[in-house]
Amino acid sequence: MDKLEFICRQLSKAENKIFEHYVITRIWHLLNDTDIKLITQQYVVRPEGRALTDMYFPQLNIHIEIDEGHHKKQVLSDKIREADIINVTGHEVLRVDVTKSLEVINSIVDNIVNKLKVAKKMKSDFKPWDFEAEQNPLTYISRGYIDLKDDVSFKTMVDAANCFGHSYKPNAIWKGVVKHPREDGKYIWFPKLYKNEGWDNSISNDENIITEVCLDKSKESTYPELKISGTKHIVFARVKSSLGDTMYRFKGEYEVVSDAIKERNKRVLKRVSTRVKTYNNVILSDTLAVPSLKTWNKK
Amino acid sequence: MDKLEFICRQLSKAENKIFEHYVITRIWHLLNDTDIKLITQQYVVRPEGRALTDMYFPQLNIHIEIDEGHHKKQVLSDKIREADIINVTGHEVLRVDVTKSLEVINSIVDNIVNKLKVAKKMKSDFKPWDFEAEQNPLTYISRGYIDLKDDVSFKTMVDAANCFGHSYKPNAIWKGVVKHPREDGKYIWFPKLYKNEGWDNSISNDENIITEVCLDKSKESTYPELKISGTKHIVFARVKSSLGDTMYRFKGEYEVVSDAIKERNKRVLKRVSTRVKTYNNVILSDTLAVPSLKTWNKK
Repeated sequence: MDKLEFICRQLSKAENKIFEHYVITRIWHLLNDTDIKLITQQYVVRPEGRALTDMYFPQLNIHIEIDEGHHKKQVLSDKIREADIINVTGHEVLRVDVTKSLEVINSIVDNIVNKLKVAKKMKSDFKPWDFEAEQNPLTYISRGYIDLKDDVSFKTMVDAANCFGHSYKPNAIWKGVVKHPREDGKYIWFPKLYKNEGWDNSISNDENIITEVCLDKSKESTYPELKISGTKHIVFARVKSSLGDTMYRFKGEYEVVSDAIKERNKRVLKRVSTRVKTYNNVILSDTLAVPSLKTWNKK
Repeated sequence: MDKLEFICRQLSKAENKIFEHYVITRIWHLLNDTDIKLITQQYVVRPEGRALTDMYFPQLNIHIEIDEGHHKKQVLSDKIREADIINVTGHEVLRVDVTKSLEVINSIVDNIVNKLKVAKKMKSDFKPWDFEAEQNPLTYISRGYIDLKDDVSFKTMVDAANCFGHSYKPNAIWKGVVKHPREDGKYIWFPKLYKNEGWDNSISNDENIITEVCLDKSKESTYPELKISGTKHIVFARVKSSLGDTMYRFKGEYEVVSDAIKERNKRVLKRVSTRVKTYNNVILSDTLAVPSLKTWNKK
C-alpha cells in the first residue's frame, strides 16, 4: 500500500453515508495538500466516553464531525473496543451540519479548509506526512526515540521490537512479550487491551493505567518475572487500524505497581514515560561496537 | 431529492473502486461549480459499441474515463440494456490513468478541471444546471419545445404527456401510449427499447431507427391505427436513471415507415425530428383560449 492507496481507502469508507462522504472528500480535495495526513472513522477517547470521529488530521490535532441530523449510535461492542483508540485531550473538533443546503455546506467546508491551512502554518514543528517513513523502524532508530505524541504504529511486532536493538527477521514469531535487549529489567509488550481469549485486559480512559487479568489458570504462572514490582514494559497495544489491519500502537512505558502483586492472576501497570529511547539493531551495531544480541538473549 | 442529494448519490456510486472514486470526487470538488451537472456511470453509444463512462458532464459533452490498468468488463446483459443510454457522437472523452502516482494523478485532474472550466466558458449557450426545473414540464412548456440536445428525462409519463397539452393528475395510470391532444395522427409513446415481457424492441446505435416486435399474439391487434404508415410518435424511452430510478427520456419524434406494415407483429419507426413543440395544458389554456382537452379526447 502506498500513500495514494491509503488516501483512496480512507476516502472510500463512508460508502453508505452519502452526505458524510461528500463532506470528507470535499475537505480533502480542497485542502489539496499531500503533506497533511488524514484518517477517517477514528475512535477517540473523550471525557464523556468513546466516540467515532468522521475525519481526523493527526498532525494538526483536528477532528471533523459530520452531523447527519439524527444522533449517531455509539455502540461499543467488543469488536469496536479492539479498534484503534486515541485520546483527544486538547484536540479541536469542527462540525459540519449536513442537513443544510448545498451552498451552506460548501461554505462551511471552505471555512474548515481555511482553518486547517492556518493550523498547519501555525504549527512550528509541523512535519510533512511521510507515508513510507512513519512505519519504518529506521525512522525512529535514527531519531533516537519514540514519543507518544508522534502517533506511532507498526505493522508487525518485529518492526516494533527492532526499534530497541533487536534484529528479528520479518517472519519471526513469538508470544506477546520480548526482553528489551539493551535495558535490564525491561520488556517490550504487545497486549490486547480489551477482553480476549483467556484475558480480561483494559486501559483507563486517560491511558495511564493498564489492568491485566488472567482468566486461564494454566497461564497464571507464565513469566513470573513480569509480575515483579518495578518491572518496566514498553507497550505497543494490538489495535485494528482505521483500515482494518492489525497494528501495534505505541502507548508509552509502563511499570508494574506493587499493590497488585498479591493477586495471583492480576497485574496493574502505571505509565511512567511517554517517550522511550531507541537503539541500533545488531546489523548496525556490529560496526558500532554495541554488545551483540546473543549477550542479551542469555540474560 | 434535491441537488445536494443528487450530487452526493452520484459521488457515492463507485464504492468498491477506490481510485475511480478518488478521481471522480477530486474532479467534482476542484471544479467547484454547482452550475455544472454531473452524471456518473453513464451508458453511452459509441461507434464501436456501448460502454460505461465513469463521469459525464452533459452540458459540456465531456466524459471522463478512469483507466484502472485492467480492461473493464463491458458485459451487456439485458439489465444493462435497460439503463439510460446516450449517444456520444461529437462528445469528448478525457482519460485518467490511475496506475500512476498520487502526484501524477493530481496533476492530470488539474488539467481536466481546467479543460472543463474552459469548455464552459467557450459554450456561448451554456445554461446553468437548474435541478428543480430540468424535470418540471413547465420548463419545457414555457420554452415552447423539447430538444434532444437538452437531455430531457421525466420522472413520470404524466409529466412527459403534460408537456403537450394534457393535464393528467400525478396519479393517472395508462398504457404506454397516449394520443397527442393538439396534433392529429400523433402519439406520445413510452416504449421499453429492449426485450421485455411480450415484446422484443430495439433502437439502432445511432438511435434513428426503432424496431418493435410483438411476441404475444393476443396483443398484436391492439391499436391498429398505430401501425398506419406515417403515424408519428413522440418517444420517451423508459430507462433506468444513473441512480436506478425509472425515468422517461426524450428520444425525438419517430414516424412509422411503410415497408414494415405488412408484418403483422412488427413495426419500424424512423426518427424524423429531434425537436418537438410543447403546449400549455388545460389549466393554462383556459385563459389562452386554446381548445379544451375534451375536444381532443373525443377524437
